[in-house]
Amino acid sequence: MSSRKKVLFITSNAHKVQEIQELVAAESRAITIEHLDYNCPELQLDTVEEVARESATYIRDRIAIKQPFFLEDSGLHIPALNGFPGPFSAFVFRTIGNEGILRLMAGQTGEDRTATFKTAVAYCESRTATPLLFVGTVKGRIAETARGTNGFGYDPLFEFRGKTFAEMSREEKNKRSHRSRAFMKFLTHIT
Amino acid sequence: MSSRKKVLFITSNAHKVQEIQELVAAESRAITIEHLDYNCPELQLDTVEEVARESATYIRDRIAIKQPFFLEDSGLHIPALNGFPGPFSAFVFRTIGNEGILRLMAGQTGEDRTATFKTAVAYCESRTATPLLFVGTVKGRIAETARGTNGFGYDPLFEFRGKTFAEMSREEKNKRSHRSRAFMKFLTHIT
Repeated sequence: MSSRKKVLFITSNAHKVQEIQELVAAESRAITIEHLDYNCPELQLDTVEEVARESATYIRDRIAIKQPFFLEDSGLHIPALNGFPGPFSAFVFRTIGNEGILRLMAGQTGEDRTATFKTAVAYCESRTATPLLFVGTVKGRIAETARGTNGFGYDPLFEFRGKTFAEMSREEKNKRSHRSRAFMKFLTHIT
Repeated sequence: MSSRKKVLFITSNAHKVQEIQELVAAESRAITIEHLDYNCPELQLDTVEEVARESATYIRDRIAIKQPFFLEDSGLHIPALNGFPGPFSAFVFRTIGNEGILRLMAGQTGEDRTATFKTAVAYCESRTATPLLFVGTVKGRIAETARGTNGFGYDPLFEFRGKTFAEMSREEKNKRSHRSRAFMKFLTHIT
């Protein structure tokens, strides 16, 4: 019986746990992902990389977690809106939602509808380690209307090669998403 | 010669320093406000009270400031947008600006244009004190277009009894603003 490495994923978002569990299974990685349902304090910083790193540092220094752990921060970045909603994507989604994003994008066409999804995974191997960052991005565009019922958050707005993330099966989205790209880099590092 | 109490205002926003200095002068308060130009880390929390309290706690615990200090966090809250932009007002202003708020409010009329400005001042008397909070609010409405050139931030959008804050003189705005209401409560407490 092989001893599988265990790492703890700290997140309050069950969708994200499911995404990485499916990747681990699909790739037959020799790792067990455990889940701690905790909503980590996040700083108001301008990039998801900084937010993830600071959150990991906070947990490392303040919370008695002895095993290796990771967390992630993700954001939708729209250049025509100067990077909005960026690292505040969760709050913006809770308040103005996809409807608000569509209003802000009214009248934008062509290249001006470009958007990038980005995930930064921050991994702490031990209580003394500096968090390591693994970043995944995917470039797409903001659809003219919300389409599809899969996924969560901004998925119905984010169009990649003609389909929104919410129109893709989980398997299809997992092949393309910013989060799975960041998770894959991370899994490759630790296994 | 009376010995004037000194307190340190920690903020990177010169407008806010000017506002409180003018209040202190207008009210002849026996206090000297010193200024430390520092952009304190702010957590992503849902209220300006929590953001101000956590920032003050952070400074108290991590930075060697021996004298009494205070800082403030302010936000514009629009009920029709579920409280957006709230504690993230600064980031939202930098990215989508007043133009973005107007787009989000398009079609809203009457009561639905209601908005509240809120300031929370957090004051730490000593390295062992729990931060005290002083909150000021002002209720107004989001104007149909930006008007006026005084003030800063959302002032051209925030209408109070027919005039936007940006159409008021500083003296006039100081009599009405959320920030001066919070500052006055704070000054009354410490002098």
